[in-house]
Amino acid sequence: MSHNSFGTLFRVTTWGESHGPAIGCVIDGTPPLLDLSESDIQPWLDARRPGTSRFVTQRQETDQVRILSGTYEGQTTGTPISLMIENVDQRSKDYSAIAETFRPGHADYTYHSKYGIRDPRGGGRASARETACRVAAGAVARKVLGPDITIRGALRQVGEHRVSDMDWDWDAVGDNIFHCPDPAMAVVWEDYLDGIRKAGSSVGAVVEIHASGVPAGWGAPVYGKLDGDLAAGMMSINAVKGVEIGAGFGAAGLRGEDAADEMLPGNDGPGFSANHNGGVLGGISSGQDIIVRFVVKATSSILIPRRSIDTAGGATEVVTKGRHDPCVGIRAVPVGEAMMACILADQMLRHRAQMG
Amino acid sequence: MSHNSFGTLFRVTTWGESHGPAIGCVIDGTPPLLDLSESDIQPWLDARRPGTSRFVTQRQETDQVRILSGTYEGQTTGTPISLMIENVDQRSKDYSAIAETFRPGHADYTYHSKYGIRDPRGGGRASARETACRVAAGAVARKVLGPDITIRGALRQVGEHRVSDMDWDWDAVGDNIFHCPDPAMAVVWEDYLDGIRKAGSSVGAVVEIHASGVPAGWGAPVYGKLDGDLAAGMMSINAVKGVEIGAGFGAAGLRGEDAADEMLPGNDGPGFSANHNGGVLGGISSGQDIIVRFVVKATSSILIPRRSIDTAGGATEVVTKGRHDPCVGIRAVPVGEAMMACILADQMLRHRAQMG
Amino acid sequence: MSHNSFGTLFRVTTWGESHGPAIGCVIDGTPPLLDLSESDIQPWLDARRPGTSRFVTQRQETDQVRILSGTYEGQTTGTPISLMIENVDQRSKDYSAIAETFRPGHADYTYHSKYGIRDPRGGGRASARETACRVAAGAVARKVLGPDITIRGALRQVGEHRVSDMDWDWDAVGDNIFHCPDPAMAVVWEDYLDGIRKAGSSVGAVVEIHASGVPAGWGAPVYGKLDGDLAAGMMSINAVKGVEIGAGFGAAGLRGEDAADEMLPGNDGPGFSANHNGGVLGGISSGQDIIVRFVVKATSSILIPRRSIDTAGGATEVVTKGRHDPCVGIRAVPVGEAMMACILADQMLRHRAQMG
Amino acid sequence: MSHNSFGTLFRVTTWGESHGPAIGCVIDGTPPLLDLSESDIQPWLDARRPGTSRFVTQRQETDQVRILSGTYEGQTTGTPISLMIENVDQRSKDYSAIAETFRPGHADYTYHSKYGIRDPRGGGRASARETACRVAAGAVARKVLGPDITIRGALRQVGEHRVSDMDWDWDAVGDNIFHCPDPAMAVVWEDYLDGIRKAGSSVGAVVEIHASGVPAGWGAPVYGKLDGDLAAGMMSINAVKGVEIGAGFGAAGLRGEDAADEMLPGNDGPGFSANHNGGVLGGISSGQDIIVRFVVKATSSILIPRRSIDTAGGATEVVTKGRHDPCVGIRAVPVGEAMMACILADQMLRHRAQMG
Repeated sequence: MSHNSFGTLFRVTTWGESHGPAIGCVIDGTPPLLDLSESDIQPWLDARRPGTSRFVTQRQETDQVRILSGTYEGQTTGTPISLMIENVDQRSKDYSAIAETFRPGHADYTYHSKYGIRDPRGGGRASARETACRVAAGAVARKVLGPDITIRGALRQVGEHRVSDMDWDWDAVGDNIFHCPDPAMAVVWEDYLDGIRKAGSSVGAVVEIHASGVPAGWGAPVYGKLDGDLAAGMMSINAVKGVEIGAGFGAAGLRGEDAADEMLPGNDGPGFSANHNGGVLGGISSGQDIIVRFVVKATSSILIPRRSIDTAGGATEVVTKGRHDPCVGIRAVPVGEAMMACILADQMLRHRAQMG
Repeated sequence: MSHNSFGTLFRVTTWGESHGPAIGCVIDGTPPLLDLSESDIQPWLDARRPGTSRFVTQRQETDQVRILSGTYEGQTTGTPISLMIENVDQRSKDYSAIAETFRPGHADYTYHSKYGIRDPRGGGRASARETACRVAAGAVARKVLGPDITIRGALRQVGEHRVSDMDWDWDAVGDNIFHCPDPAMAVVWEDYLDGIRKAGSSVGAVVEIHASGVPAGWGAPVYGKLDGDLAAGMMSINAVKGVEIGAGFGAAGLRGEDAADEMLPGNDGPGFSANHNGGVLGGISSGQDIIVRFVVKATSSILIPRRSIDTAGGATEVVTKGRHDPCVGIRAVPVGEAMMACILADQMLRHRAQMG
Repeated sequence: MSHNSFGTLFRVTTWGESHGPAIGCVIDGTPPLLDLSESDIQPWLDARRPGTSRFVTQRQETDQVRILSGTYEGQTTGTPISLMIENVDQRSKDYSAIAETFRPGHADYTYHSKYGIRDPRGGGRASARETACRVAAGAVARKVLGPDITIRGALRQVGEHRVSDMDWDWDAVGDNIFHCPDPAMAVVWEDYLDGIRKAGSSVGAVVEIHASGVPAGWGAPVYGKLDGDLAAGMMSINAVKGVEIGAGFGAAGLRGEDAADEMLPGNDGPGFSANHNGGVLGGISSGQDIIVRFVVKATSSILIPRRSIDTAGGATEVVTKGRHDPCVGIRAVPVGEAMMACILADQMLRHRAQMG
Repeated sequence: MSHNSFGTLFRVTTWGESHGPAIGCVIDGTPPLLDLSESDIQPWLDARRPGTSRFVTQRQETDQVRILSGTYEGQTTGTPISLMIENVDQRSKDYSAIAETFRPGHADYTYHSKYGIRDPRGGGRASARETACRVAAGAVARKVLGPDITIRGALRQVGEHRVSDMDWDWDAVGDNIFHCPDPAMAVVWEDYLDGIRKAGSSVGAVVEIHASGVPAGWGAPVYGKLDGDLAAGMMSINAVKGVEIGAGFGAAGLRGEDAADEMLPGNDGPGFSANHNGGVLGGISSGQDIIVRFVVKATSSILIPRRSIDTAGGATEVVTKGRHDPCVGIRAVPVGEAMMACILADQMLRHRAQMG
């Protein structure tokens, strides 16, 4: 498989560096006759856009998307959809210092080790700017999925502060800058993150994504599992270090009689006593909500000096001045939603292929 | 991509049902001139084999592997390697009852929903028996990787009982039936699992896999990330509900100055102050140990009755009599090692392709 | 993509060497609930089987196929179908001489150059014996396509003796040992090939395959074209040196007003004035018959001595004694049919995925 | 596989319609540290560019290519290379008539049948304008292959007028507007095509591509064959109806003693008595020149009225006024060279992956 593509039938290929002229993606396999114009994509990009609060990077990007192919008179034609977003705020500062230093916790050293060359401007290809393309593709994927499938994301945890199931309210998510489903916790986070920010530090977070309305039967054994795709997709998001489905790592402590979601007769498909399996059994959807969680580590672009080495191997120190994200997990919420949408769209098409 | 294949260049395709005549796999892309005979594969299968202690299923399978193609006079030829394991202990009992009932927590219902037909004997394709093929493929992958890369696995946690880093001793893993790296904890688990077993129940576990000797530079942005492949691969193992790299979900609570592994000058590549990133940065190996953890849920094949429905939608109750695994996590250790080996072999070949 | 697999959704992976214990294939992506047992596959293998006349190799293989997975009670389950054919007539003669000589026109030298090792027994992986797996897969593909699509093959040309369109009679194909659609030409070929055979020589041939009943719309631009798949699939058959669609190379001499098949109003889809495009326009089926032709070169395993070199680079001479095919094109007819079936099945599933 | 991508490791994804704002491609898998700027690509595009003689379409496109990603300071970085060419001469005429008519011999009807929608402006996605992207990708592929591999193309045949091997002179190819290797034949073609052009007609052609310097060993059995890739790649070019390797369809008439290229001891690898196999045996290169030929049918966009139907199924007549190509084969020469380059680059990387 190509390194910079994902999906089998709904297939997304992204390209571009943080400070190049533009970033973009090509989406292949979209069914025809779906209404699609820039205005269907732009709102999702706006939700991910940097510079919207003091808790996310202050880089100013308008993230205006342009459809270059694949539609005719406002409808998809079934041919590849090319989307492009020009980079506006590249700040052509002097990168010579950063070019010779490996920032700890970043991909500088590993890119250098692999390729012997790297674009040091803003992290190059390893920049989270790439995720704008995922969000744009996700908007197209939602069109493929149609109105019966709802994808929602929220921030489950910031630092050690975790929202409990009991306090979870989807309706609250849009009311705060954190995508927090618990208004009380949003206040806690604001105060907590102000402290982190003022200390020039950063902190990790956990994002949770739900998909409702997915019928039973999507996914495929054994290496085409729906949860396998979700694991790969979420892990490929910048700074993600773990992915779990349903009860996730909590399942270690559950006994068999608790872990299995009992099945009950129902009028419209079976009922379930719980959803520890996150809507996936044997890699195939059960009709319950698909529930995925992933952890985003703290960015290491902070004001606190860290020890590192330069390209010559000598000791040095790294401090990242200027704009940075105290909690990159916040902006990962729409990215996780988009990945869920793309993966479901792909599995929907794969299911339809085999089952008619 | 094909549903039952994984890997791009070192590509494994598995086939077979739990109670069919045989299971097997085809491994494509193996470099030629590697020494390979059945005796290179059999020991790894023996380590995964059922029936070896009272804590794993009592199904009796000899798991004798046979190489059907791809070698000549004891060496690989570069052509596809076909491996076959005959099923011996299929116990041809009456499956008519189980065929009409969906076992909760299993893939019975989802397979039925997707395909409208399923092989009910022993779980059919969804059986963990499929993992024998992964283990066999992993033995070939280790040949590809060569002696400089060491892959080791252990059980990190059973139920709520977790081995701490402090007590971790790789040398202890082979001394107990649990792959437990802490002799004292092994005693705790034995007692604990005897209780679980006698209660007719089961419990979850966490498996941890390390790979040492992987050079910096393997993996690829953005959707060919090494950790993306690991996430997909481990999640595809039966009963796995989460995967994490390095600090994993613990990274949520770490601040930027703690999460980033500082770099230090070294004689043979850089040193690192820690390994919170589990040996992967930006999807590319850093030269540190690759560290992956995954959680295996408790099997729902237990003696305790659970509510369920039958294929007609009516209420019923399910009890699994006879052999079962009180902790399927135990046998998942060699499977996790094998997946690590296969994924690294594939990434090694992919790296070599692009970099020469 | 894997070297030994073809197809995207209906995906076939073959394995095995000419003189190993067995050959076989794994078919992934088959829809469930299709009737399938060995008796659905065996007749197609029997049609390709060697040893059936004096014009094909005298190797005696029963080619008994066995289904090892993917069916339950005589129906496909949607999981991978593993098929195995044991090699019976391997004739364990002394291969040491042949192992050190490169037969001209065969893959001996190129395999050696690539891998540094090769299985010299009967051509190893490069043997046309591999095509039995294609034929077996083709039988499954025909099940996927259903009864409305008819695939037929015939021999168009042997040596310089070519059947004209005027003399073409599909009903005659089964009446002679050549799959010849012209009874008069069959007599010519018999005499001609007897001469070739007695001279210890061999000759090339052209095979033609038609598919009727394919609806308009299968295939996809630009690299997923139906004719692109047909070209790759037919070219991958042993000894094939060219593939053409419709008018093929004859199109060079046609003017625009003759090359374009005019369209006419029809009751059940449009009518066409001709089929120079072989049923494919822009890579997508037009509803007309799909027409493919491919050329099979003469085998170089002949009794006439040819100059060659040995593995040490020295000059030698090669004569192939014993059984051989005076015209391998004869047995390529069912192979071409099978490839057509597999490629159409794959494109059918791909079409269904995108279009519903 | 994705419909609009080709190649496994050197992977090209193209996008764009004839009259959209732009066309382009994303090239993934390129090794790093290759010198690459627009000036390395532009000359190849200029060679394919329309409007350069009276025998090719008069559409005026400057075909200025822009590199949007994947390079840093004039070198490739190993990340995806995005290339874009803006469409300049779209001639925004009234397409309402053409939108309701299916041009015979074009993909209008098949696109409509498949998708239920099509971009009718200039053929949309089915336009030969897409081949500009292949040519751009081919320029990058040549960088990957390096200076030791030479790829050359020529026109072998126009209408019934075919250049003989005896008159073939590679040095003459650049001296005429037809890429003709025989100066005398170029004069014949000029006169012949003037007649075709004045008659408002068009004619087919045969293109021949050679690659020299390819070492023995590239390619892979059985479905990853070098000639299988060449067949698929060339067949995917607009209007191509056949592909052959070496002796091609002429091999039907050759006897075994003539078809096999005898091998002779040589100082630098073996010598061969001939090259009927076009440099490929068993799907793997032999070290001889790779020789591929493909036929391009006459365009059906001609001044001579042809019968057709409209989208309502009624009878109509089609005449294509304005610019058209009397012989589209002329412009297919650089396209064929580019496909050869891309396929070889991909096989080079695949070979390196498995063989080190």
